[in-house]
Amino acid sequence: MIDRPEEPSGLDILTLAPELGKMYEPISDDLVALNRYLAEEFRSTEPFVHDLLMHIARYRGKQIRPAVLFLASRAVGGEPDEAHSKCAGVVELIHTATLVHDDLLDDAKIRRRVETVNKRWGDRAAVLLGDFIYSRGFSISTEVRGVSRLLADTTHTICEGELLQVGSAGEVDLTEERYFEIIEKKTAVLYGMACRVGAKLSKGTKKQVEALERYGLCLGMAFQIADDALDLIGDEAMVGKSLGTDLKNGKMTLPLIRLRTILGEAKGQELRWILENPREIGARPRVQKMLKEHQVFESVRSTAEKFIAEALKCLEVVPAGPARDSLETLASFVLERDL
Amino acid sequence: MIDRPEEPSGLDILTLAPELGKMYEPISDDLVALNRYLAEEFRSTEPFVHDLLMHIARYRGKQIRPAVLFLASRAVGGEPDEAHSKCAGVVELIHTATLVHDDLLDDAKIRRRVETVNKRWGDRAAVLLGDFIYSRGFSISTEVRGVSRLLADTTHTICEGELLQVGSAGEVDLTEERYFEIIEKKTAVLYGMACRVGAKLSKGTKKQVEALERYGLCLGMAFQIADDALDLIGDEAMVGKSLGTDLKNGKMTLPLIRLRTILGEAKGQELRWILENPREIGARPRVQKMLKEHQVFESVRSTAEKFIAEALKCLEVVPAGPARDSLETLASFVLERDL
Repeated sequence: MIDRPEEPSGLDILTLAPELGKMYEPISDDLVALNRYLAEEFRSTEPFVHDLLMHIARYRGKQIRPAVLFLASRAVGGEPDEAHSKCAGVVELIHTATLVHDDLLDDAKIRRRVETVNKRWGDRAAVLLGDFIYSRGFSISTEVRGVSRLLADTTHTICEGELLQVGSAGEVDLTEERYFEIIEKKTAVLYGMACRVGAKLSKGTKKQVEALERYGLCLGMAFQIADDALDLIGDEAMVGKSLGTDLKNGKMTLPLIRLRTILGEAKGQELRWILENPREIGARPRVQKMLKEHQVFESVRSTAEKFIAEALKCLEVVPAGPARDSLETLASFVLERDL
Repeated sequence: MIDRPEEPSGLDILTLAPELGKMYEPISDDLVALNRYLAEEFRSTEPFVHDLLMHIARYRGKQIRPAVLFLASRAVGGEPDEAHSKCAGVVELIHTATLVHDDLLDDAKIRRRVETVNKRWGDRAAVLLGDFIYSRGFSISTEVRGVSRLLADTTHTICEGELLQVGSAGEVDLTEERYFEIIEKKTAVLYGMACRVGAKLSKGTKKQVEALERYGLCLGMAFQIADDALDLIGDEAMVGKSLGTDLKNGKMTLPLIRLRTILGEAKGQELRWILENPREIGARPRVQKMLKEHQVFESVRSTAEKFIAEALKCLEVVPAGPARDSLETLASFVLERDL
């Protein structure tokens, strides 16, 4: 079980998923240390800045990225120390900054059941708060020897992935290959980097470091595929965040690409019309109906499962034990969400 | 004179201000090296990203921040090398990223006589491009020993300054003290840091490094005071960027604060009404009339001159010579703009 510090740590694991507690057992002390560190970092003597930081502390959820960093460290026989905490903190900060900017870009109103920064304080605050968090993350990363370049480059790749997605908005003919390239950059590299850093700081072998990075990458791919499916099929009240924004913003995600392929030119007229006019009333339910009719989610799930299978295979490089068990469980957990 | 490479370097100094050419003579090779470096860095195999990078290359103007970095290096007897180029590049990247985000926040349409990123490609591209540039800057900074922390912290301070400004939008009673604190953070620290890095990399004495940093800080303060005045009184066609946004966005800048003080409670009714309704038609000309009537710009100019005087005094720590001459001319140049 995880201690609950007096300050809101955001780590309300048990209400999120009962199995998460067990999965996080090997790293519960590490997560406590991380959240203590984040609570200290997330402070400001400026009331306005302080309010913003307190607000986004509530965005913290399952902390999967820091968790895999700590688990990768323990999986190679390490004992996470302050350097791990700092890196895990940076990974979480980078993730939080992308959330703040994503919500603004998606014009999202809800995040983890609270108002988004853009909704509550406006776009200006959201842009600047994201920048503020990024730069804090970079600053912290310079305190740990040999990782700051990797962390900056990963952030750069994430931004590139997001830019590519923006650049391909409305591109109804986006290929699966390109989709995978984009989600690898915008999502999966951060998981991969977290695992790499965790294992590397704990002096894992080159083979272990690389395999664990690949594990993270595959986990991230599966996670994003699941997330994209959720955006099309999920229920806002259940998921606790704004959904349906991908469709509205012309993002061609895997289910849509696959549906387009299944329907082909001849039967694809209705779909194409919706994709070109995604803000028309009824667009989402109509697409949902087609996706169900053609069992697209089964097909998408099977793709995600392949990534998970590869992730599990990567774990063979580390000895059996509680950390490896947790990494295994975590991999399956990604698919348990709502897909 | 400065060579013009085939690639658009953005360094079109002579058309900007004839005296700039002479001022930049001691560092013309450094600026060529910098712009060659930036042209290499500002490339992407992705057409969409490439277009964005080519576009913002046109934002590059007088490059005052890189210039003071090189001049500070030469003023302490240094010979700028690759490390200086990289740091100057990072300083320019940080500045460019803030411009891209600022334009989005101000809903500005024109920047350096071309369309802003937000105007041309939308808000999503503008947010992500800013993030992309920031992270590239951090990545480069890790290549130079001992500066990445300073660069990240400075960026963090800039974002904090911008956040404080957002947080105080519409605060008609903002004090001068608070205004100075905000502009120091959002603008002046970057000039100060550029000078510090230039002098430090060239092994200036502690006293020189500190005095040059202070020089940069004072220069930045004067620059921002001039810029804020320009936003109220300038002519868009002449300045080449959107103006009047501060007033519209409820930013209390020095001229407005001073006018408020001069008018006092009794005579300040009209001003207060405009400041509370800054988007009403005629707000800007009405404020302009009052500012002129009460000779506020003269008063503001005298404040900027005090900062310039302090900047000049700081230069006494370095030996006389072309670099120091340029730093002196540059300081006076800030006030020659249109104030």
